[in-house]
Parts: sequence; C-alpha cells; structure tokens
Amino acid sequence: MEQRNHKALIQTLLDCALACEYCASSCLEEGHVKMMVKCIKLDRDCADLCVQAARLLQRDSVIAHQYLLLCEEVCRLCAEECVKHHHEHCQACAKACRTCADACHKNHEPIYQD
Amino acid sequence: MEQRNHKALIQTLLDCALACEYCASSCLEEGHVKMMVKCIKLDRDCADLCVQAARLLQRDSVIAHQYLLLCEEVCRLCAEECVKHHHEHCQACAKACRTCADACHKNHEPIYQD
Amino acid sequence: MEQRNHKALIQTLLDCALACEYCASSCLEEGHVKMMVKCIKLDRDCADLCVQAARLLQRDSVIAHQYLLLCEEVCRLCAEECVKHHHEHCQACAKACRTCADACHKNHEPIYQD
Amino acid sequence: MEQRNHKALIQTLLDCALACEYCASSCLEEGHVKMMVKCIKLDRDCADLCVQAARLLQRDSVIAHQYLLLCEEVCRLCAEECVKHHHEHCQACAKACRTCADACHKNHEPIYQD
Repeated sequence: MEQRNHKALIQTLLDCALACEYCASSCLEEGHVKMMVKCIKLDRDCADLCVQAARLLQRDSVIAHQYLLLCEEVCRLCAEECVKHHHEHCQACAKACRTCADACHKNHEPIYQD
Repeated sequence: MEQRNHKALIQTLLDCALACEYCASSCLEEGHVKMMVKCIKLDRDCADLCVQAARLLQRDSVIAHQYLLLCEEVCRLCAEECVKHHHEHCQACAKACRTCADACHKNHEPIYQD
Repeated sequence: MEQRNHKALIQTLLDCALACEYCASSCLEEGHVKMMVKCIKLDRDCADLCVQAARLLQRDSVIAHQYLLLCEEVCRLCAEECVKHHHEHCQACAKACRTCADACHKNHEPIYQD
Repeated sequence: MEQRNHKALIQTLLDCALACEYCASSCLEEGHVKMMVKCIKLDRDCADLCVQAARLLQRDSVIAHQYLLLCEEVCRLCAEECVKHHHEHCQACAKACRTCADACHKNHEPIYQD
C-alpha cells in the first residue's frame, strides 16, 4: 500500500474541525449566546464531518471521496453563518470552512441518488 | 423543541453500527482473515457513518437527512460484502445493514451536486 | 468469538448518549441559553464518551473497562448539572446519566496512574 | 475566551491518530494479516482515543486532562505492539504513539478511582 497523496487535504479537514470546535466553545462564552445558536450547531456538525472525512481518506475508504461532497456542503453552510458574526473566532472559522469547502470540492466524487 | 419522531430510525442506525462493530472484531478472529479484509473495512466505515447519522438526527441537524443518503450507500456496500460470508456475524450484519439501508432510503433528502 | 455479554450496558450507554444529544440541542433552543452553557458543554462531552465506550465494549477492546471509569466520571458531572434545571430534557438527561454512571461503576477497571 | 495553549499537544494527538489509521489499513493489506490482528485492533482504539482527546482539549473540556491518562495508556500499548513488526507503517506508528504517550503524560490529570 502506497502512502496516501491526500496529506494536505487531510490537514485542511483537521484544521477546519479544530476551528469549528474552538468557535463552538467560544460562542458559548459570548455575552449574546442566543445570537450564536445557529453558529454553534453548524460548528458542531462541521467538526464531526471534517474529522470523519479525514479519517476515511487516511484509511483509503471506498466512500471517502463521496463523503467529501457532504463535507463541502456543511463547510459552506458553516462559513455562511460564521461570516455574519464579528467575533475573531467566527471570522477565523469562516475562513477555515471556506478553504476546506474548496478543497473538498476539488476532490469529491458524485453520490448516486435515486 | 418537540421530541424527535425519528426514534425507530435512530435505533435502527445504532443497531446496525453495533452489528458492524461486532462483525469487524469477529472477522479479525477468524482463521482466514485474508478473505475478510474487505468485510472488515466496510464494517468499520459503516459503523462510523451509522453512529454519526444517529447523532445528527437526534440533535436535529440541518444535514441529517442528506447524511442518510451516504449512510444508505455504505450500508448497501457492507450488506453486499457480508452476505458472501457464511459466518453468523457476517449474516447478522448483512441483515442489519439491509434493514438500515431501507430505513435510510425512506428518510433521506437529495444532496446538491454540481 | 462469543457474543458479548455486555448488551444491556451498551444500550444504557447509547441511551445516555441520545439523552445528552437531545438535551444539548434542546438547551440551545431555550430562552435563557446563557444559564444552560455548562449543561450544553457537559452534554456534549458525555455523549461523545458514552458512544465511544459502547463501541469499545462491542469490539471487545482491551481498554473498554478502563474507559468506563472516565465515562462514569463525566456521567456524574453531567447528571449533577442537568438536575439543577427544571426543563424536561434536563431532568430526563440527569436520570439517564445517573443510570449510566451506576452501570459504568459496576463494570469499570482501574487505570494505572503514576 | 483565550486561545488554547495546547496547540502542539493537539497536533501530536492528531498525527498519532493519522499514523494509527494508516497502520491499520496498511496491516490489512499485508500478506500475513493474521500476525497483524493485535496491531490492527490497538491502532483502531488508539486512533479513536487520540482524536477524541484532541477535540476535548480544543473545546476546553473539564475532562480533557483526565482523558489524557487513558490516551497515554492506549498509546503505550499500541507502541509496544507496533514496534514488534518490521513494516514501515508499524515502525512509524510506534514512533508516533511513543511521542504522543509522552506528550499525554506531561499534561494529564489523575482520575478519581474508588
């Protein structure tokens, strides 16, 4: 088995997951938590999917590249929400999510839908 | 927030994940491990995705129903492989995967693909 | 490989994880989110650890029973916080966490600490 | 909320998880899979725990530092097994696990055991 050539993509996914984890816990510490609810929810989903995508790629799973399609979708949703908030952790998370969405887009495969 | 009406679906996903975990570790104990490699790999992916799907549904995630599309795909792949092997754990896993794939199919939403 | 005899314990762990997932997302919908921050954080940790514990037991991992010690700890912390809040989801979660902590206590093994 | 000062530790945990994922899937491709069974099992547990530890640290969880105690234990077990095998992926994994075990050791907190 040859070393995977997805090293950069995997690190991008993990960096995005860490940005989301940090954003979610930081949002919970903000004064106006109520305004951050959608952000917290998307952060959590996005962190979960990015970590899972990284692990599927690293283990050379047959569904890894299809998984990236869904991962791209949640990264875009999370970026769109985070960018609305001025907090540094939200802006950093929005940036990480956009970068990750683009990386997923370049590598995903279609999913059969009937 | 109203109680989720996906209780049965969530339990089906978790039962499938447990069948896959058990099948994977049991396959590793079989005499002819070499023949079980594809089964072990799919079991692992399927367990990961089914657990994640259950958690997304339980937390009412916006991407939960799109996730089920991918979950259905990996359940079908895992069922197709498991059913080839006579071991009791493989046959039980194939059955759990088929049941879960059908449940996912009834509840999934399309994913936008460009 | 014989069928695991931890079926009830595993289901208790998964039920606790689902109660935590539901409590966390419901807390985010409450009017006074600010008061629920500690609850949301513990719910999330508790859900993660209970799911992981269930999977380790189901795959007969050598560290499964040590893991239960940590799982018990987080279940107790989560129960202590949840019980303070009158919301139905918090009370249900507190109950699930206490049940799970007790089940973990009966089955855990010591961890070597130097 | 201040930026976490655990950046290096978190990356060490993620690097270890990736080494374990790669080692597990590579072991499954080896001619003598039967000899690699213990390695595959520990790789899987170790990957799961290291990813979880990284996420708990990143979200500043109250149980993150206790979790590192268990993480250290599984990293040591995985390193001890991997080092026995001459495959490059096993040697690389053994090294990553030892590095991670040492990092966990420096940062863990005791777990109350009664």
